[in-house]
Amino acid sequence: MGGAGAEAVIPLAAVVGILYALWQWFVVSRVKVSGYYQSLDTGNGYHGGPVFEMDRMEEDAGEGSPDERIIMAKCAEIQHAISVGAKSFLFTQYKYLSIFMTFFAVVIFVFLGSVNTFSTKEQPCTYTQNQNCKSALANAFFTTIAFLLGAFTSVFSGYLGMKVATYANARTTLEAQKGIAPAFKIAYRSGAVMGFLLASSGLLVLYISINLFKVYYGDDWEGLFESITGYGLGGSSVALFGRVGGGIYTKAADVGADLVGKVEKNIPEDDPRNPAVIADNVGDNVGDIAGMGSDLFGSYAESTCAALYVASISSFGINHNLSAVLYPLLISAMGIIVCLLTTLFATDLLKIKAISDISCVLKRQLLISTVLMTAGIAVVTFAALPKNFTIFNFTNDKHVKNWHLFLCVSIGLWAGLVIGYTTEFYTSNAYSPVRDVADSCRTGAATNVIFGLALGYKSTIIPSFAIAASIYTSFRLASIYGVAMAALGMLSTVATGLSIDAYGPISDNAGGIAEMAGMTHEVRRRTDALDAAGNTTAAIGKGFAIGSAALVSLALFGAYVSRSGIGSIDVLDPRVFAGLMVGSMLPYWFSAMTMKSVGTAALRMVEEVRRQFNNIPGLMEGRTKPDYASCVRISTNASLQKMVPAGFLVMVSPLVAGTFFGVEALAGLLAGALVSGVQVAISASNSGGAWDNAKKYIEAGASDHAKSLGPKGSDAHKAAVIGDTVGDPLKDTSGPSINILIKLMAVESLVFAPFFAEHGGLVFK
Amino acid sequence: MGGAGAEAVIPLAAVVGILYALWQWFVVSRVKVSGYYQSLDTGNGYHGGPVFEMDRMEEDAGEGSPDERIIMAKCAEIQHAISVGAKSFLFTQYKYLSIFMTFFAVVIFVFLGSVNTFSTKEQPCTYTQNQNCKSALANAFFTTIAFLLGAFTSVFSGYLGMKVATYANARTTLEAQKGIAPAFKIAYRSGAVMGFLLASSGLLVLYISINLFKVYYGDDWEGLFESITGYGLGGSSVALFGRVGGGIYTKAADVGADLVGKVEKNIPEDDPRNPAVIADNVGDNVGDIAGMGSDLFGSYAESTCAALYVASISSFGINHNLSAVLYPLLISAMGIIVCLLTTLFATDLLKIKAISDISCVLKRQLLISTVLMTAGIAVVTFAALPKNFTIFNFTNDKHVKNWHLFLCVSIGLWAGLVIGYTTEFYTSNAYSPVRDVADSCRTGAATNVIFGLALGYKSTIIPSFAIAASIYTSFRLASIYGVAMAALGMLSTVATGLSIDAYGPISDNAGGIAEMAGMTHEVRRRTDALDAAGNTTAAIGKGFAIGSAALVSLALFGAYVSRSGIGSIDVLDPRVFAGLMVGSMLPYWFSAMTMKSVGTAALRMVEEVRRQFNNIPGLMEGRTKPDYASCVRISTNASLQKMVPAGFLVMVSPLVAGTFFGVEALAGLLAGALVSGVQVAISASNSGGAWDNAKKYIEAGASDHAKSLGPKGSDAHKAAVIGDTVGDPLKDTSGPSINILIKLMAVESLVFAPFFAEHGGLVFK
Repeated sequence: MGGAGAEAVIPLAAVVGILYALWQWFVVSRVKVSGYYQSLDTGNGYHGGPVFEMDRMEEDAGEGSPDERIIMAKCAEIQHAISVGAKSFLFTQYKYLSIFMTFFAVVIFVFLGSVNTFSTKEQPCTYTQNQNCKSALANAFFTTIAFLLGAFTSVFSGYLGMKVATYANARTTLEAQKGIAPAFKIAYRSGAVMGFLLASSGLLVLYISINLFKVYYGDDWEGLFESITGYGLGGSSVALFGRVGGGIYTKAADVGADLVGKVEKNIPEDDPRNPAVIADNVGDNVGDIAGMGSDLFGSYAESTCAALYVASISSFGINHNLSAVLYPLLISAMGIIVCLLTTLFATDLLKIKAISDISCVLKRQLLISTVLMTAGIAVVTFAALPKNFTIFNFTNDKHVKNWHLFLCVSIGLWAGLVIGYTTEFYTSNAYSPVRDVADSCRTGAATNVIFGLALGYKSTIIPSFAIAASIYTSFRLASIYGVAMAALGMLSTVATGLSIDAYGPISDNAGGIAEMAGMTHEVRRRTDALDAAGNTTAAIGKGFAIGSAALVSLALFGAYVSRSGIGSIDVLDPRVFAGLMVGSMLPYWFSAMTMKSVGTAALRMVEEVRRQFNNIPGLMEGRTKPDYASCVRISTNASLQKMVPAGFLVMVSPLVAGTFFGVEALAGLLAGALVSGVQVAISASNSGGAWDNAKKYIEAGASDHAKSLGPKGSDAHKAAVIGDTVGDPLKDTSGPSINILIKLMAVESLVFAPFFAEHGGLVFK
Repeated sequence: MGGAGAEAVIPLAAVVGILYALWQWFVVSRVKVSGYYQSLDTGNGYHGGPVFEMDRMEEDAGEGSPDERIIMAKCAEIQHAISVGAKSFLFTQYKYLSIFMTFFAVVIFVFLGSVNTFSTKEQPCTYTQNQNCKSALANAFFTTIAFLLGAFTSVFSGYLGMKVATYANARTTLEAQKGIAPAFKIAYRSGAVMGFLLASSGLLVLYISINLFKVYYGDDWEGLFESITGYGLGGSSVALFGRVGGGIYTKAADVGADLVGKVEKNIPEDDPRNPAVIADNVGDNVGDIAGMGSDLFGSYAESTCAALYVASISSFGINHNLSAVLYPLLISAMGIIVCLLTTLFATDLLKIKAISDISCVLKRQLLISTVLMTAGIAVVTFAALPKNFTIFNFTNDKHVKNWHLFLCVSIGLWAGLVIGYTTEFYTSNAYSPVRDVADSCRTGAATNVIFGLALGYKSTIIPSFAIAASIYTSFRLASIYGVAMAALGMLSTVATGLSIDAYGPISDNAGGIAEMAGMTHEVRRRTDALDAAGNTTAAIGKGFAIGSAALVSLALFGAYVSRSGIGSIDVLDPRVFAGLMVGSMLPYWFSAMTMKSVGTAALRMVEEVRRQFNNIPGLMEGRTKPDYASCVRISTNASLQKMVPAGFLVMVSPLVAGTFFGVEALAGLLAGALVSGVQVAISASNSGGAWDNAKKYIEAGASDHAKSLGPKGSDAHKAAVIGDTVGDPLKDTSGPSINILIKLMAVESLVFAPFFAEHGGLVFK
């Protein structure tokens, strides 16, 4: 395939993906949710009137019986409140984000610009011999631009994903009145909007940026792709806010709502009298949709940038073979097409007849996309890559054949599947691990916690081997480029992964709306079933996210090492080992911060909910409405404030290590944080998921064993609830946040590598 | 100082240490515990008669009033039961141990003998040029002998330590009748017996072995000190049984006793009606005395062996400068003298007037020994080492000055103090971290668990920096030799460390005996105060143990790398990185195993205790005695059986990694396990210690804040009890066991290094 072919295929696939997403959105929009309140937005997370006010409802000319219309109006109203709440969080977040981005853009520009004392003169290239490259100042400028573009794309897709999710939740509830299959389809299609928008716009913006930057850079591909790494850093910086801030938000709202509502006031979950109920539902969207989206977008952008950078200093780049350099983008383009076909199975080809089919269909999505993608990888690899080429390998070049790269990408893809299925095994209550945890509730909360922690620890075994095997194979075959491509292989089906993942919170919200709108037991049962399947897929999504984060970080790490000009990282160098030791501690420090943040943010929420119950007369009786907006405001502000110290730790650690202790110490730090962080993240996510599902297992009472532990309110169930509460911040805040820690530190080091190489290691100088 | 001077000083100090230990034992023995039952040993953990049978008590010719004599006889009886139970555990353990040791001795011999296909011919030395060294077969033989000697020494000192501890517990109780000061002294002196015996006999046996081996090896110091590494492996293998088996024992008995006694039957802790009460008291000795002793002995033996090995291939060894080679032993000899002086402060110079003085005196022991030892290190260093010398540094030699080594040893010593005091800060209820955890009990067990976990995570920060700083400094100044000497510096005050540590379980037992013998509230209050101080020192001891384990493992790691003949361990080698990833997972896998072992062993205990309460008529009313012996038997067997899989993982992982994936993969594995294990161990120990003391803080109700959370039985207290139970296996089993994991894997790799270098990496061949 020639360069022009590649040039054509990439934007084409991206545009097809975007159109497909819009089409799905259109299908979802055909479910009508009409209600009087939709037009009354006062912008404070809630409108002015009393709850579920029905007096002017008659004016609305909806279809169906008056009862149905009332329910529909209620749904519309709740959806509106959630949507306004989510928007309010996002806009506040963007405010903080824009300050941070501006500041950090300046830092990037100054640090990188200073490498050659802000000279605008061209310099000899580092890897391409006998050629001049653009000045460090130009690189600083374009890196900053790429950084802002990456951030913008992530924000844009996250925002639209959230928009469609809060648009689809009530629609899913309404469809659940008809049956399980239509409800499932609506939820899944809405998830797909997010998945495809994110994957496609990420690809398209990157493609356009490369082409625009090329106008300036011309033949200096080294500088071009060095600057493009800023795109990954931008995506990841947004993920810091999305994942960490969103993670704190969702759990502060959840724990705050539960502690007062369920425990003190003894009202059911999602009861509209609970002032934190809207914030809780907002949290699902904020944490699991926008947070997860930005996390995976970051991984995707970073692995692509790492691969592109290494390619630019390999024979591809030096020989100016464009379609070979653009191989990572071609893989992603193929991924979009494959995911599109895969989605058809869920929305059109496979039939959902019973509730038990749901999780099966979702799991099969993973398998189908993996199998199809394997073929897709083969096509792209043999079409785009020359038979033989060399890849940059630190001190020398590595001779690589095209089928080697097929193996690299494929092993990443399949490792993702293995991690996903392992996660499912450890967190789904269909298997023995979670059932053992449920059983341990007999002897109380302490044994439940001990068994849950042990389960989380144990669940790291297979993923670690899967990651190690991918690293070994891809690294061996094609050095750091292979690792980056393995990461991209794991992420090639990101559109499907995100669809499945976003489906979860949409269903969760749908259940909440059904409860608040007072819908029938049958509807609630259907939304519960959708939600339960979503819980497992959420755990799988987290497994993917951490697995890809590990590979991405290693790829970035390798790119950092090349860019900082050190040939090897010897564990027996005291700086490296000291770095390893401190680095492996960082995930613990970071987790301690995020866990405590949830605690203190939840405490503020508890106080507000208590205040409302005490001060608003008639609230408990359902005669007056609570002030939802103030709860939304409190979680928004608390979560964004509380993420500052954790964010500071992530952003500052590499800068301090590199500036004061030099590139070797920083390399040790990154490697230590990476290998230790993977374990902390996997064990935290899976312990939390297992506790959650052990509780659900006891509540559902679907088997004799489960019945012997239940029902709700039994001692064993109480013990299970304690485990679930312990697991909440672990699985939704501190665990997933580790991804950001390891990736962001690595990409930041990559971007600042020239600065550290030039001015770093002050302490030892 | 000449070689002869060094030769004389080392055994002298060791003998002085042993004599001092015996003198302390003699002082302890002057407290008379006489009772009829002491003569009736049926060897099953308990005698034949009914509980506290008084009928023939009159025949006993003790002093004092009849009441006092009855109490004394009761104490004697309980002490006897504990002592017999402990002996029964140890002897069963020795049975398993001897099978394991025999098998492993054969493995060592065969693996190492096979390096040169069992030839008895001499071979050219690896590092000493133009000289022939003994055959690989001879090295295999002597390594095996050293292995058995190390194991024997550890068993011997552990056994005597346990003997004196179970001998001193009742004596402490009796002295507590007189006052707090005499009771403290007896407990501390008994701890000192253990501390000095272990440090001195370890030194003496090593010294004698070196001299005996020299008769055969002559000028082949390379082979001599290679074989001596077996001593460290032997010590560490015993620690596997002591730490892991003992750790499971102590918590299975504790949790089993509490779950039925406190929770189901509502009888107080240490109530003589509880069938598991003796097993629980045995467990304190088994886990915290024999286990901790063997752990620290292992570290001590390993760091000395690693230092000796590196010295033998440095200028010391090549120039045959004996006093320089024996520098590590001289440091230990000085340590014994310093600790002897330090102990005088506790037993004679400082006066204990009030309860609050105890923990102060104990903490001051650490400071005094550290300050004195710093001077001691200076004396030894400048007397024993030449001004300039070279140290083996992988691919080249490093020029080192003697004051560099003074710094290396001192930084290890002081890092130990920093780690100890940090641990105290995070686990003592005198400071805010534990009080915050106690406060979080207001909102229930879940927040307590979350805050406790976060505390543990946070408590890794300072120790990681302290370890990293020691590693950096010592490594930089004197390569891997410096690291080994830093480890030895941390362990130089091991006699004091162990005295303080062993003091804890002795006081704990004394309290148990006071309760069981029905002594006055005042006596119980005094033993409680001794115990509370012991809790904090136990946490400090664990901090020391993991800190030294980290340094020791790194030293062993370095020695392994030299011995396996690889010049550098490049993180960017795919084998190394894959090893790092899997290695960092191992502590999780291992912890999952040990945690579950405690759970299942405790369950067996619960069943037995329930069975006895149900089947023995009059037990609950105190009319008949429970069958203590069967509980002791059950914990003994359960704990030793349950440690098998965990032990298997430790022993087999390096063998598999080395044999199939080669020396580089194994190097990565060791480094990963080391840096990740340190975090897991520290956080587990400190979370557990904090939960324990948070509970004690609420129970004691010593401040307004504590009173607002209590009293015993309040909701907050119940939440605190759940946290304490979660922490039990973390702090006493899985956390400390990690030390063994990282050390044993490293020393095993060191011993088998020639085999791996010769035959390893089958998969890649």
